[in-house]
Amino acid sequence: MAADLFIRNARPFGGPPVDLFIRDGRFVAANEVRSAIEIDATGHIALPGLVEAHTHLDKTLVGMDWFENRVGPTRNDRILADRKAKRELGIDARRQSARQIMQTLPHGVLHIRSHVDVDTEIGIANIEGVIKTREALRGLVDVQIVAFPQSGMLQREGTLELMDAALRAGADIVGGIDPATIERDPVRHLDAIFELADRHAKPVDIHLHEPGDLGAFCLELILERTRALSLQGRVMVSHAYCLGVLDSARQQALIEVLAAERVAVMTVGSPSAPALPLRLMRQSGVVVASGSDGIQGTWEPWGNGDMLERAKYLAQRNGMTNDSDLEETARVCTYGGAEGLGLDHYGFSEGCFGDLVLVPARTMAEVVALTPQKRTVIRRGCVLVRGGEPAGDLPAIE
Amino acid sequence: MAADLFIRNARPFGGPPVDLFIRDGRFVAANEVRSAIEIDATGHIALPGLVEAHTHLDKTLVGMDWFENRVGPTRNDRILADRKAKRELGIDARRQSARQIMQTLPHGVLHIRSHVDVDTEIGIANIEGVIKTREALRGLVDVQIVAFPQSGMLQREGTLELMDAALRAGADIVGGIDPATIERDPVRHLDAIFELADRHAKPVDIHLHEPGDLGAFCLELILERTRALSLQGRVMVSHAYCLGVLDSARQQALIEVLAAERVAVMTVGSPSAPALPLRLMRQSGVVVASGSDGIQGTWEPWGNGDMLERAKYLAQRNGMTNDSDLEETARVCTYGGAEGLGLDHYGFSEGCFGDLVLVPARTMAEVVALTPQKRTVIRRGCVLVRGGEPAGDLPAIE
Repeated sequence: MAADLFIRNARPFGGPPVDLFIRDGRFVAANEVRSAIEIDATGHIALPGLVEAHTHLDKTLVGMDWFENRVGPTRNDRILADRKAKRELGIDARRQSARQIMQTLPHGVLHIRSHVDVDTEIGIANIEGVIKTREALRGLVDVQIVAFPQSGMLQREGTLELMDAALRAGADIVGGIDPATIERDPVRHLDAIFELADRHAKPVDIHLHEPGDLGAFCLELILERTRALSLQGRVMVSHAYCLGVLDSARQQALIEVLAAERVAVMTVGSPSAPALPLRLMRQSGVVVASGSDGIQGTWEPWGNGDMLERAKYLAQRNGMTNDSDLEETARVCTYGGAEGLGLDHYGFSEGCFGDLVLVPARTMAEVVALTPQKRTVIRRGCVLVRGGEPAGDLPAIE
Repeated sequence: MAADLFIRNARPFGGPPVDLFIRDGRFVAANEVRSAIEIDATGHIALPGLVEAHTHLDKTLVGMDWFENRVGPTRNDRILADRKAKRELGIDARRQSARQIMQTLPHGVLHIRSHVDVDTEIGIANIEGVIKTREALRGLVDVQIVAFPQSGMLQREGTLELMDAALRAGADIVGGIDPATIERDPVRHLDAIFELADRHAKPVDIHLHEPGDLGAFCLELILERTRALSLQGRVMVSHAYCLGVLDSARQQALIEVLAAERVAVMTVGSPSAPALPLRLMRQSGVVVASGSDGIQGTWEPWGNGDMLERAKYLAQRNGMTNDSDLEETARVCTYGGAEGLGLDHYGFSEGCFGDLVLVPARTMAEVVALTPQKRTVIRRGCVLVRGGEPAGDLPAIE
């Protein structure tokens, strides 16, 4: 366990300067700390650990040869190219997931939910690889693993059994994907997923790219099953593009049900996909989280995993420029993500885990607009990164 | 004049490695260079100077106190806030334009077209300020100045005379803005602008945010006047959002006329504005340029002026992920901008200006997707920036 920490002159979420105290990995009151290591935050803004609520750790190509992307434009083209790349490029899920985690740590990403492929070609090898990384790097970051049937589930015989095996092997969450356009049978797909979740007592996280009214119908099916199985607070819908294109009455009605059933929505703020009504969802009480999606993979060549840059993408996609709106997008990438992932002991209150990110900026809007680097990253009272450089004994990875 | 330069092992636009020779500020054949300074580009990609085709140098707040943005959502709210900020914050156009230029130089931005406000409150003070900066920094960057009636022209008596004065003082281009929604009289606005351009023998660059069919109508008026005054190759339309929302037949028809009249289109790829049909415009022969628009001002809090990051925005807004598409967006931010701005001697051919940017990357797609920094920037054979750090005797600015 790390020594006590006394962090002087930090500004939580851009508020007035305070001193923070960490003992035994938790925030405590001043009088509980004795011979503490002292850190002068010099007025930098303190954020709780950034939350990456949606990525694909097993598929990043970070550190590998450049992949020339000649993939066709449809989602199915991309799924086929993705499976081919896994075969031909030898993407090692253990190694690659570690590389991505080490790349995003200096940004302050301390909580990651990763979808990890399960299919009949690779079986649960990627799940096992990411589990190994999770164990190896458990001192740096929390990782939640979603068993994700990227290539479809019922259409590819044996995948459902592999999903079951993935959950028994240590996956935390049951994943699903486009029950209509990919799986061709929304009811059976969702029934199978919710049955798995019920049987294993696990949460659910479904990729829902389905467009317009088809997407809204699938979302209703998800909401019905959430209520039937009393899974309130344990279901996330990722992307949910349909919410961005419905007429406003229907949009509002669905948002109210999402809030009532406490189904979280994850949006990456993609510049080329429909913009979700971020302000309306937040004001209506929907839990909104965000994520990078794939980083430098066969789907998309870009991405650095900085969840403050992600907050900027959310603001830009929604045409937001006001300081107060930018601060809201930072909340999505911290508190919103924490709630969506069901994290305990998150934040700066006494008893919360002693995790924080110090960002050299004047205001929260500046944090989002200019995403200053040279951050200091502290987890459970251990200084992992100081001013952008590795501080502790970070593990060497390949 | 700088010494001769011999740049070994550079890969122009990601092609095979070549050696490049610069004498008297121009690219020349190998046998024309004698005792040259040698630079080993170590296989980095060489680009011609990046072209910033649309920004507002006089209005950046870089280096000033943080501006808390509480501005309302309409364009008119923003124009009013902008004018108020000029009054109350003391935005010095000379100083601020120099700061932005020095910020974007290490990215490799060597050509800038800047709209500069002309209105009845500040008169042509901003034009004069940016002209001073242009002179002071003429060894670093080319600046084209657009006299820009941000607050409207015919509606505000005296502005037209100030536009005339700005052109006499040294502005290079006649600007215009939303002839219908801001100016309330599209024909008279455009007639006045084209009359100024004709009388001063200057090009035209018009901000056209007008939506849908209204925008298309204004665009037709611009095209008619371009043809009538034989201004082919000397007119740019900035933003032109209408092109992104018309039905495809009307879109195609307008694009064909844009190509025929050689009217360039400038798009920033804004994530919250309509996406212009980038591929179709390029394939149809329309000159497409790009720009950052305002950097860290009262309109938008973000922006770093890196025109390779801008290429990424263009790709992302258009849903492009293929390597070949990403290379196209880099062409927009180099050759496209150069053509739109009417730059001479641009590129790597013998006789072209000896300007280049070396980027540490494997492919052009990586240049766009990951925008590597630590670039080396050479202008007219002078090494201005080496590996991201100032190399020559760069002028000190406030």
